[in-house]
Amino acid sequence: MTPQAREAILAADRVVGYLTYLDLIADLIKDKEKVGTAMMQEVDRCQQAVDLAIDGHQVVVISSGDSGIYGMAGLVMELANKVPAENRPQVDIIPGLSAVNVAAAVLGAPLMHDFAVISLSDLMTPWDLIKKRADLSAEGDMVIALYNPRSKKRVTHLDEVRELVLKHRDPKTPVGIVQKAGRPGQHMVISDLENFTKEEIDMQTLVIIGNSQTYVENGRMITPRGYKL
Amino acid sequence: MTPQAREAILAADRVVGYLTYLDLIADLIKDKEKVGTAMMQEVDRCQQAVDLAIDGHQVVVISSGDSGIYGMAGLVMELANKVPAENRPQVDIIPGLSAVNVAAAVLGAPLMHDFAVISLSDLMTPWDLIKKRADLSAEGDMVIALYNPRSKKRVTHLDEVRELVLKHRDPKTPVGIVQKAGRPGQHMVISDLENFTKEEIDMQTLVIIGNSQTYVENGRMITPRGYKL
Repeated sequence: MTPQAREAILAADRVVGYLTYLDLIADLIKDKEKVGTAMMQEVDRCQQAVDLAIDGHQVVVISSGDSGIYGMAGLVMELANKVPAENRPQVDIIPGLSAVNVAAAVLGAPLMHDFAVISLSDLMTPWDLIKKRADLSAEGDMVIALYNPRSKKRVTHLDEVRELVLKHRDPKTPVGIVQKAGRPGQHMVISDLENFTKEEIDMQTLVIIGNSQTYVENGRMITPRGYKL
Repeated sequence: MTPQAREAILAADRVVGYLTYLDLIADLIKDKEKVGTAMMQEVDRCQQAVDLAIDGHQVVVISSGDSGIYGMAGLVMELANKVPAENRPQVDIIPGLSAVNVAAAVLGAPLMHDFAVISLSDLMTPWDLIKKRADLSAEGDMVIALYNPRSKKRVTHLDEVRELVLKHRDPKTPVGIVQKAGRPGQHMVISDLENFTKEEIDMQTLVIIGNSQTYVENGRMITPRGYKL
């Protein structure tokens, strides 16, 4: 957690977030009033935060990783924008370390060159559009970071993406897999494009598919920037 | 700066980096021995860091933003890998906030959906490949973050990218421009695809081009994730 995020939590009198995340920062929240909701209740949760802010509270919304990357930042801002100007609360976004930042560091240096960040969750995005993005990113030889690569309900999406990328990239291309990046239980494995879908991969996993230049040496994944050595 | 980065600097006895960055953290370095080099001497600088580590020093290499995103992580690792196993220093990468994390927070919430990160520096990458990546990312309707958008020597690249994206995207698409993200002198402006290249843009600027869903409201840029409100 960055010092700026820590300060925001300490300065707030109401802390809103997904219950599991609130538990992770219990030592910071202490006896502040909490508004915790279960998964999938993002709109309710952020609306409560906006309502509390309208009532004059100093509210902080907890979002894991970087709230600005597939996080709660946009939803809070959209809801705040629905409030008439005279009551509209000010929204400040505090940047953080997203899974892509942390997972890359765990794997080595896979993001030294251009990359695409794609979520395979099709709850709110058509699967055809997600596939198109993966296909075009692979055609452009970009490193590809996949959020939400697999869930209990979505078991075949990752295999479809693998097939798309294989059209453009060597089967031996390194693929890094990091579970629980930066959290207790963190686990990483480096596989390749041909075999990586056989690894244990769930919603809390970040997958980084290398580009044509990415290689593995001494157990770490590196995409060279192009310096002459 | 994250607590982990701070601790690493405090624990080191040698601090290596681009002089300008070392000056920014002078209060942390204090009387530690510094190895500062000018811009464009990345290989020399990182080789010195590796040599010092081989000699038994606890070395920290300073890289602005996230060392794992267009930073020094890969170069240090590549140079360390050239050292025979018996002398090879251990390299730990400490993730940080990259310009894309910070600039997005300044602009609002432009990265709520899939995005591409592309550097327009063609010092080590063929310009045709960079253009191809921009073109394909635009075709895939991904938000596009541009690092190194313009330098004194490269004045027309950004206009070429603008033309490519305009083939796929409305001229009114919001474009966020952040100079010195997270540093003294930070400045942001939100323009659109038709006009953004007229703004002041240099090597220290990050440009975020929205996708087809991105909009501007109350002076902030938002790419909705797709929640029903």
